[in-house]
Amino acid sequence: MRLHADGSSRSPRATIALAFVCALAVAADAAAQLPGLPPVPLPDEPVVFATAEEPQVRVVVVARGLEHPWGLAFLPDGGLLVTERPGRLRIVRDGVLDPEPLTGVPEVYSQGLAGLMDVALHPEFAENRLVYWTYSKPAGEGAWVTLARGRLTEHGLADVEDLFLSDPVGGTAASRVVFAPDGSLYMTVGGAFGAATGGLRAQDPGDTVGKVVRLLDDGGIPDDNPFVGQDGYRPEIYSLGHRNQLGAAVHPETGEFWANENGPLGGDELNRIRPGANYGWPVVSYSREYSGGRVADRTFQEGMEPAEIVWLPSVAPSGMAFYDGDRFPNWRGHVFVGSLRTGMIRNTGHLERIVFNEQGQEARREWLLTELRQRIRDVRQGPDGLLYVLTDADDGAILRLEPVER
Amino acid sequence: MRLHADGSSRSPRATIALAFVCALAVAADAAAQLPGLPPVPLPDEPVVFATAEEPQVRVVVVARGLEHPWGLAFLPDGGLLVTERPGRLRIVRDGVLDPEPLTGVPEVYSQGLAGLMDVALHPEFAENRLVYWTYSKPAGEGAWVTLARGRLTEHGLADVEDLFLSDPVGGTAASRVVFAPDGSLYMTVGGAFGAATGGLRAQDPGDTVGKVVRLLDDGGIPDDNPFVGQDGYRPEIYSLGHRNQLGAAVHPETGEFWANENGPLGGDELNRIRPGANYGWPVVSYSREYSGGRVADRTFQEGMEPAEIVWLPSVAPSGMAFYDGDRFPNWRGHVFVGSLRTGMIRNTGHLERIVFNEQGQEARREWLLTELRQRIRDVRQGPDGLLYVLTDADDGAILRLEPVER
Repeated sequence: MRLHADGSSRSPRATIALAFVCALAVAADAAAQLPGLPPVPLPDEPVVFATAEEPQVRVVVVARGLEHPWGLAFLPDGGLLVTERPGRLRIVRDGVLDPEPLTGVPEVYSQGLAGLMDVALHPEFAENRLVYWTYSKPAGEGAWVTLARGRLTEHGLADVEDLFLSDPVGGTAASRVVFAPDGSLYMTVGGAFGAATGGLRAQDPGDTVGKVVRLLDDGGIPDDNPFVGQDGYRPEIYSLGHRNQLGAAVHPETGEFWANENGPLGGDELNRIRPGANYGWPVVSYSREYSGGRVADRTFQEGMEPAEIVWLPSVAPSGMAFYDGDRFPNWRGHVFVGSLRTGMIRNTGHLERIVFNEQGQEARREWLLTELRQRIRDVRQGPDGLLYVLTDADDGAILRLEPVER
Repeated sequence: MRLHADGSSRSPRATIALAFVCALAVAADAAAQLPGLPPVPLPDEPVVFATAEEPQVRVVVVARGLEHPWGLAFLPDGGLLVTERPGRLRIVRDGVLDPEPLTGVPEVYSQGLAGLMDVALHPEFAENRLVYWTYSKPAGEGAWVTLARGRLTEHGLADVEDLFLSDPVGGTAASRVVFAPDGSLYMTVGGAFGAATGGLRAQDPGDTVGKVVRLLDDGGIPDDNPFVGQDGYRPEIYSLGHRNQLGAAVHPETGEFWANENGPLGGDELNRIRPGANYGWPVVSYSREYSGGRVADRTFQEGMEPAEIVWLPSVAPSGMAFYDGDRFPNWRGHVFVGSLRTGMIRNTGHLERIVFNEQGQEARREWLLTELRQRIRDVRQGPDGLLYVLTDADDGAILRLEPVER
């Protein structure tokens, strides 16, 4: 037991929790003081953009009126499932958003940026109708980052159960869930904010916060997880040293899991996730704290994985997708990443396209949709080979990017 | 004398020269293969932009038809001097570009990106009419980065003389010249490309390439230069470890010299230049080579100065200015930096605004003029408190940013 400056004694866990609240307060305060561009409403008509490698791209609004949509899944019948952060699961059928949310979603902790987040279909959804989602589950003063699943019926979810709960964490912890080719699933557990305080949880192998976890489709732990049976390690852990991961995808050719994470000021990363690897937060980082100081005195260290892509300044990367469709042939193999905020200016964001060279190294990046000035929460490739984008707003939308035929 | 793999022997200097040509060929080749957006002509009418901290900004074309304008100086009578890279010095009188270039500019080496570059007025120009400029002077197969001065007469330059010649360097070495408050001048000498080859020249204290040099107004060496009398050091050197600096300015409050430099892929830097300091290229760097590999295995090192601002990916920073005028009160204290290329996409560029917090640390960055899709070569604050911008194009222009009065 340690004595604190005020003479009281607190458990380490309580200290972490308090530090957390402070760190979040600082972050929220910094955001509140940001200058912003005036918000721009989405245009009613399709907009056509010139781009560097696909000459003309049309942007169409598929659906509006979604409150902070977060994740997206394509149903085999052509429908779309989309989450709304306050805790609703919505469905688009035949291009029309059903005004009624699906029933059966459990209560979510929806303070700040927390709430209902990602959604994914079981690889055998056509047979078992199983839907998976991540959400913030109320836990006293904070939340657990939770993975749940349910069976999709005509109007809602049945047989709902929680499959995994993280250790308790602050309310802005993000989480994505993506199925792997072998039928297991990757889940990101964010919330390791504050380099000197909660960030250290990302390095704690006995804590699931600030990690990628890998689970079976029933929430069980795969035998071949890298730390199974290792003393002091949570067996769910697949990789360590993450801050807050808002985007993730499996590479369509290699089957590898990739995820991106937000630094505080700069130092956003896109990582290729290797089993058992440590991605360094907050020991190595390119980022600075909201107060201005450097998070770490180094950006590389033996035993810590360097990022594939680093952003300086921050773009606040969010949902991501590898493109391998045939509708944009010049974009095949490129990564698309949504951006929630560019340059710490409110009401700006873009869709970033990243091109790799033959050695798999970054070759160039293009910012798309800048003129729309939307925060981009997610991007996915549809079964039709088009790109679908979620805007993060009170009146959020699903956008579709289509080639303009020549 | 060293024996090379092909059995021949070459002097180190010849080896460096050859490596240089190769490095430049690679860079030029990478640029040639870049995809690009279709070029957008500058609009005829003024354009008004919303920005995050100055609500409405109007962009006006002051003059067109300038071939790759590079540097700008404001004459006390309201006129403007502007350089054209192929080797012409032009004058704008009463808002009209004189169709005749000024006479008396010496021959320049104008291959690739080399040529006539920056221009500055002597602090006592009103009395002595002395104009200073930097240019690439033909030197066999390469060039010397050269500082010259002349006296401005009605139609041209008289009494022209070279004041300083760098060591020989490849043809894309950039150079800025800025007068200090004490009447001395700072000159950047670029061209330290290719981390494994010419880049090492930036660390060689006996070579002026990859350095900031400080000179008296007659080209003499100030007694208080940091390496005066130090064995092995060129006494002109003010700071070491620079790659290629395309922008520079003196801070209006502190009098400190700031300069930015281009990394190859990422790792562009904005540095506060301290006398005798080493800025690390190519020993510490955030950048990657055009071929993809990391330039350095570290980004910090004892004895090397960290940058104030780092860009990942590259924006190819160019001319810069601190704003301290009264026409944009919300921009006071901010730095403006031109960008020649964003994300390695041709025909894109922007004007970047950087805000510092009270501790002098980066707080946020805004990209301005993105919709114009111009390469921005220079930005300066005019005596009228407005911002002037040069676009880098065959048909380049001088733009003026004005507040839209409310």
